[in-house]
Amino acid sequence: MWGMNVGRSSKPRIAITMGDPGGIGPEIAVAAAASPGLRRVADPVLLGDIDYLDALAGGLGAVVVPDCGRASRARPGPAEVRVIDTGGITGKVATGRPTAQGGLAAGAAVETAVDLAVSGEVGGVVTAPVSKESLALAGYGMIGHTEMLARLTRTRSYAMMLARGGLRVIFATTHVPISKVARRLNAEGLVEKFTIGIKYLKAYMGIRSPRLGVCCLNPHCGEGGLLSGEEKNIIIPAVRAAKRRGMSVDGPFPADSIFRGDAARFDAVVAMYHDQGMIPLKMVKREEVVNITLGIPIVRTSPGHGTAFDIAGRFEADCRGMVAAARECARIAKRVSNAR
Amino acid sequence: MWGMNVGRSSKPRIAITMGDPGGIGPEIAVAAAASPGLRRVADPVLLGDIDYLDALAGGLGAVVVPDCGRASRARPGPAEVRVIDTGGITGKVATGRPTAQGGLAAGAAVETAVDLAVSGEVGGVVTAPVSKESLALAGYGMIGHTEMLARLTRTRSYAMMLARGGLRVIFATTHVPISKVARRLNAEGLVEKFTIGIKYLKAYMGIRSPRLGVCCLNPHCGEGGLLSGEEKNIIIPAVRAAKRRGMSVDGPFPADSIFRGDAARFDAVVAMYHDQGMIPLKMVKREEVVNITLGIPIVRTSPGHGTAFDIAGRFEADCRGMVAAARECARIAKRVSNAR
Repeated sequence: MWGMNVGRSSKPRIAITMGDPGGIGPEIAVAAAASPGLRRVADPVLLGDIDYLDALAGGLGAVVVPDCGRASRARPGPAEVRVIDTGGITGKVATGRPTAQGGLAAGAAVETAVDLAVSGEVGGVVTAPVSKESLALAGYGMIGHTEMLARLTRTRSYAMMLARGGLRVIFATTHVPISKVARRLNAEGLVEKFTIGIKYLKAYMGIRSPRLGVCCLNPHCGEGGLLSGEEKNIIIPAVRAAKRRGMSVDGPFPADSIFRGDAARFDAVVAMYHDQGMIPLKMVKREEVVNITLGIPIVRTSPGHGTAFDIAGRFEADCRGMVAAARECARIAKRVSNAR
Repeated sequence: MWGMNVGRSSKPRIAITMGDPGGIGPEIAVAAAASPGLRRVADPVLLGDIDYLDALAGGLGAVVVPDCGRASRARPGPAEVRVIDTGGITGKVATGRPTAQGGLAAGAAVETAVDLAVSGEVGGVVTAPVSKESLALAGYGMIGHTEMLARLTRTRSYAMMLARGGLRVIFATTHVPISKVARRLNAEGLVEKFTIGIKYLKAYMGIRSPRLGVCCLNPHCGEGGLLSGEEKNIIIPAVRAAKRRGMSVDGPFPADSIFRGDAARFDAVVAMYHDQGMIPLKMVKREEVVNITLGIPIVRTSPGHGTAFDIAGRFEADCRGMVAAARECARIAKRVSNAR
């Protein structure tokens, strides 16, 4: 696994999926694959419906060429984007909203990307945004990328980490309604997230002794149990269990204080739910948010934003997040390949 | 009401409660009352156990003098802090943790402050941090300041607003466990918060046509109802109802996007729960967080931080938040007094 073929050159080959064609995914995927900033560090191949991408590429000043796999690795021209056709689009696709067709096309690209990464054809996968609603309409169920990748790689224990500049956040739960967050937490599950977090901060980031800081679930950490008991009954026992196993895990700390400045003391902060970690990440001004999936047997990154249905198809989308995600994918693929 | 006596001078008289004696409250209350930055704009009087405050004042280079009410308004000396004794401490008080005695002393000061404000003896009240645990041990129930002030002034509809620099956040719920936030929300309750918010942004801030932005409860706004229904069933109907009544209320927006930059478009953002609003407020670097209670018939502010039991009694506490809260109290008291 781990992307056996990182290429004959020192640049890792990475797969970029086009995402939901109803959103900005295909635009930013093409733009990223064509970007000199990415090509300096990686050999990208785009995965998606080739006719759809071909029609789109003109608007971005790029040319789509079919990828012929490892056999022909001639250097692509400056605006040439290699594509592996994963199909999925029949007829005209509606932009600006979730559709079953969008879900099917997005899903097909992800499935192929996973196959390529597992077999070592690529060193890592960068995914453009999909819509959970489209995936649900296409029959995948109400899941996101991370859950889909875990399913495709038959991984039980995994974690989502988002990074921006020096701030890294690992999520104890991901796309869970607020009303259900508390009951999704348990001490063993948290210890599992801590374990994965520390393992991959070493493997992916090269941090020798990673330190984790943990957020409370409730305001003021549940006021010592008077307000609510999840800190006392779940989070504190999990932190203690991790410490007993030799992990450097501290907390829990109130979320509004850990992100204020203390976050810098930790290599990653463990947030209990989506907004608790996303709000601070989006408020940081420097650099882009990059999503890194931890625990699956392939390297996978993505930008921190969504499909942006409202601006799809106008070529207004900002591809910097996608380029940052692809560069990070290449960096990790290289580190992992060197470590083998 | 509204603090009838703002003083013969142009400086409003404001009451400062000492907060929980087990925490940093008394230190920062004395320091704020003695601070030239506050005295330039207000005539402060401290409320608390006079013997306790007297023993403490020495460590801060201040001298406690009993306040003789309106009758004797001689200008206090530079380090003289006027105190109205509200008692409550018998024997030695434990610092660094919640105690029943701490709750009793803190509560007594708040009760007197409310009396003074309602009768117009002071133009506003600034409260130093109390501990909900101490208040509970003292028999007040598991409540915070805001709930206590609402009870003492027999107010049913009120709202907590926190402000820092240009960012103002109004909370739909305050100290509620995450597991119970969703079921505390309802459309009428939200419309009430919007109404109070707009009324007081006018009265306290002098904003002619206040604009509110509203947060979603769930990640990605509940994904159009596929993930969770509170946006569809509660928040969107509340925003529509407010618009029909002529209020400028927009949203709901995902919390991680509204605070990223869009917040500046609004005079205040309505957060659904504690951490959703507190995380962004604490991440803003400029100025101090000030808490302003809206909807009660007295002007009341407080700093955005808590008792900080861990550093109590060491004279290490930073009083800037308390001074900022007191200055804001004086500013609002003056505006309200002028408007009458």
